[in-house]
Amino acid sequence: MTRQHAGDPDFRWRGENVSRVENLSDIVFALVLTLAALQSIPSSFDELVGLWRGAISIAMCFALILLIWRTHHIFFRRYGLDDGWVTGFNALLLFLVLIYIYPLKFMTDFVVNYFTGGFETAAEVTAVLTLSQVPVLYAIYGGFFAAVYGVFALLHAHALRHADALELTAQERSWTRFEVEFSIGTVLLSLAIIALAFVLPDAIAAFSGILFAMMGLIAWVCSARANARVLRAGSATS
Amino acid sequence: MTRQHAGDPDFRWRGENVSRVENLSDIVFALVLTLAALQSIPSSFDELVGLWRGAISIAMCFALILLIWRTHHIFFRRYGLDDGWVTGFNALLLFLVLIYIYPLKFMTDFVVNYFTGGFETAAEVTAVLTLSQVPVLYAIYGGFFAAVYGVFALLHAHALRHADALELTAQERSWTRFEVEFSIGTVLLSLAIIALAFVLPDAIAAFSGILFAMMGLIAWVCSARANARVLRAGSATS
Amino acid sequence: MTRQHAGDPDFRWRGENVSRVENLSDIVFALVLTLAALQSIPSSFDELVGLWRGAISIAMCFALILLIWRTHHIFFRRYGLDDGWVTGFNALLLFLVLIYIYPLKFMTDFVVNYFTGGFETAAEVTAVLTLSQVPVLYAIYGGFFAAVYGVFALLHAHALRHADALELTAQERSWTRFEVEFSIGTVLLSLAIIALAFVLPDAIAAFSGILFAMMGLIAWVCSARANARVLRAGSATS
Amino acid sequence: MTRQHAGDPDFRWRGENVSRVENLSDIVFALVLTLAALQSIPSSFDELVGLWRGAISIAMCFALILLIWRTHHIFFRRYGLDDGWVTGFNALLLFLVLIYIYPLKFMTDFVVNYFTGGFETAAEVTAVLTLSQVPVLYAIYGGFFAAVYGVFALLHAHALRHADALELTAQERSWTRFEVEFSIGTVLLSLAIIALAFVLPDAIAAFSGILFAMMGLIAWVCSARANARVLRAGSATS
Repeated sequence: MTRQHAGDPDFRWRGENVSRVENLSDIVFALVLTLAALQSIPSSFDELVGLWRGAISIAMCFALILLIWRTHHIFFRRYGLDDGWVTGFNALLLFLVLIYIYPLKFMTDFVVNYFTGGFETAAEVTAVLTLSQVPVLYAIYGGFFAAVYGVFALLHAHALRHADALELTAQERSWTRFEVEFSIGTVLLSLAIIALAFVLPDAIAAFSGILFAMMGLIAWVCSARANARVLRAGSATS
Repeated sequence: MTRQHAGDPDFRWRGENVSRVENLSDIVFALVLTLAALQSIPSSFDELVGLWRGAISIAMCFALILLIWRTHHIFFRRYGLDDGWVTGFNALLLFLVLIYIYPLKFMTDFVVNYFTGGFETAAEVTAVLTLSQVPVLYAIYGGFFAAVYGVFALLHAHALRHADALELTAQERSWTRFEVEFSIGTVLLSLAIIALAFVLPDAIAAFSGILFAMMGLIAWVCSARANARVLRAGSATS
Repeated sequence: MTRQHAGDPDFRWRGENVSRVENLSDIVFALVLTLAALQSIPSSFDELVGLWRGAISIAMCFALILLIWRTHHIFFRRYGLDDGWVTGFNALLLFLVLIYIYPLKFMTDFVVNYFTGGFETAAEVTAVLTLSQVPVLYAIYGGFFAAVYGVFALLHAHALRHADALELTAQERSWTRFEVEFSIGTVLLSLAIIALAFVLPDAIAAFSGILFAMMGLIAWVCSARANARVLRAGSATS
Repeated sequence: MTRQHAGDPDFRWRGENVSRVENLSDIVFALVLTLAALQSIPSSFDELVGLWRGAISIAMCFALILLIWRTHHIFFRRYGLDDGWVTGFNALLLFLVLIYIYPLKFMTDFVVNYFTGGFETAAEVTAVLTLSQVPVLYAIYGGFFAAVYGVFALLHAHALRHADALELTAQERSWTRFEVEFSIGTVLLSLAIIALAFVLPDAIAAFSGILFAMMGLIAWVCSARANARVLRAGSATS
């Protein structure tokens, strides 16, 4: 009871115990965190001190993976679903996370090196990445982001279809629909940003990622809609 | 309750909690998925883009491993058995999955490279594999498939022997027998395909794997038999 | 019941089942233990015998990691909290443990080599580490220690803020406060030792780590304060 | 209920749920199994076929690790203990298994190569191992075996000390004592075999391992003693 109270006031948690789908996923997430964190063993003091750049890069990967894990965790706690569709969507999510972990590490390493002076000459930078390749980069990483939120949309839509069997309250239905809408919004935003990166001139395209801040706006709109639905349902029953 | 309802209408689930045998197996499965997914960290944009072939190959390994995991998962949920025999059969299954993961990756890499133009000359292909080696290949991979389904046959036969202690209903007994029959059918099919690959001329032998589609036929026949048993049991008690 | 009785007489355990945050953490801890233990596969008898130095170094890493794991374990058993703050603090802890495991192994390897004659000449030692680098070393490892205990202080302070919702008894509140005080004391001690390592002359600075023995004194003071609080609470209610 | 019935007729299982100590251990065991199973990814058909020797060697490591895991598993199911001593003994066990996995793989690889003609000349064998090194080898591996069974003896003795708190029946006490006696017997046998390997001439010393078959005799004697105790306790109460 305490767990539920503290963590998630709007929902009754149907999946109290850790199911095997969750267990398998946790292990994959933990392995992905470990792969993200692996650096070479330092063999001298100088190498040890040089690890700080890697630590920043690892922190960025951690933040993204744990964001995905948290959404995954809450989904399974709230609905406790464990059927073939959930296994399938979940497999897709694990697949995405596993094949993208090294590309993510590559990207965060690049960003950290770029902004902390890890590259000594401009030639070192272009050996890794040139400005004209940035749109494809947006397609690769934006595609990952869109795919992950696409899976979240599918999972929550699946929960919504089983709302009666799960005995979801009107409030719970409304917040489940919020998750679907927010996820779809994020997918569309990602696709729009990818399109923009290809359309805009290269020098500006690199900054189109700033638009991901609009996720806050999407969350705000969807949340307002969810609250309105809860209020309507409340006045209808009273 | 919701979990069971959504996932498996024919069975009462006896193993609600994750036992340690399952936990150990989940970790091994997750590690195997991770091993299948490991690629080298890209060091430049060009290497990053070149990872797409690996992604297809990984997806194929994932599909096969998760198919095995799903059968394993349902077995433990349904019967909740945890004795010496189950530990032993399970150890055999983990052993098979662990020693075959790299050979599987080798095979899917080869297939993906072959069909997407990853090899530049025919000499590159034959350096990896020649047509005359195909029958042995069928023996290696068909043998894996036969062994995995052999273990599933043994596990379900073991559950059937303890049907009284587990208080299986007539319907549950019938569907457990279905699993035994389907698994044995798959073992025999695999052995037949291996035999065929050795008997047929090399050029045709490579395609004998198409016959694995007959698993659908086996499932259909065994399922018809299971339904007939359920009906007979139903009319006998009424 | 037996579990609680044997392990922790002062507390009622609120988190009986393993939650997903704990599961994820356990996997990361186990991976860290494995990373700490990895050595190369010996290829001859002589290499096999040469592994004994590594074994001592691994044992030292194990002791430190399992000390952290034990505190982590008891926290989750006692309070069963699972909200956003706990997930966040926990993520920070996993991050610290993962990025520090190889630096720790580097340090223990160095210490074991140094004291068991693993280095043949003084030049080999200074190639890895010179005396003037010792203060920075204290900053790196003392910083890790301070950060870990800082997270423990935050976690227990968080539990204390939810004391009413968790229905903690007066005794449990007092011992939770003990954990907060002891953790903060350890953080301050670590920072003082780092400062000392920079202020003292190099030859003496290397030994400032001996002051970590003062953790026993901190534990003793905080524990006396906790017992006094329990007594006061007992006399107030009677 | 079914789980207990099928697996362990003499004991009531006190630890139904998987505790965190067990979870951590399972992950370490699964990682050890995976490390034992890792081979290089084959890059051609010939390398693929050459993996069969490794598979035999892996199977031998698996058998030994799963034997240890099974004893560990049953201990935690039966007594459900989770205090500081158990954590400590368990940490020692994990440490032993982790540092010995590569040495074990080295040994099984050698044995498999030796008996299946993996070495082409006698010089290749002696480059890895000479006859005069065999006694030290017995000390290394016999020491591992003795240490593992020493930990099992300590764990079961610890359970026996808490017999009243755990409410063990007379039968359960007797079979717990059996585990203590059998473990101590195995420790003494291992030490005797090591001593013998040093005392005997080299050519014979290599075969002193055959005496491990005497574990069957030890099990038989301890089991007879346990049955006698159960009978005595039965006649005393009637």
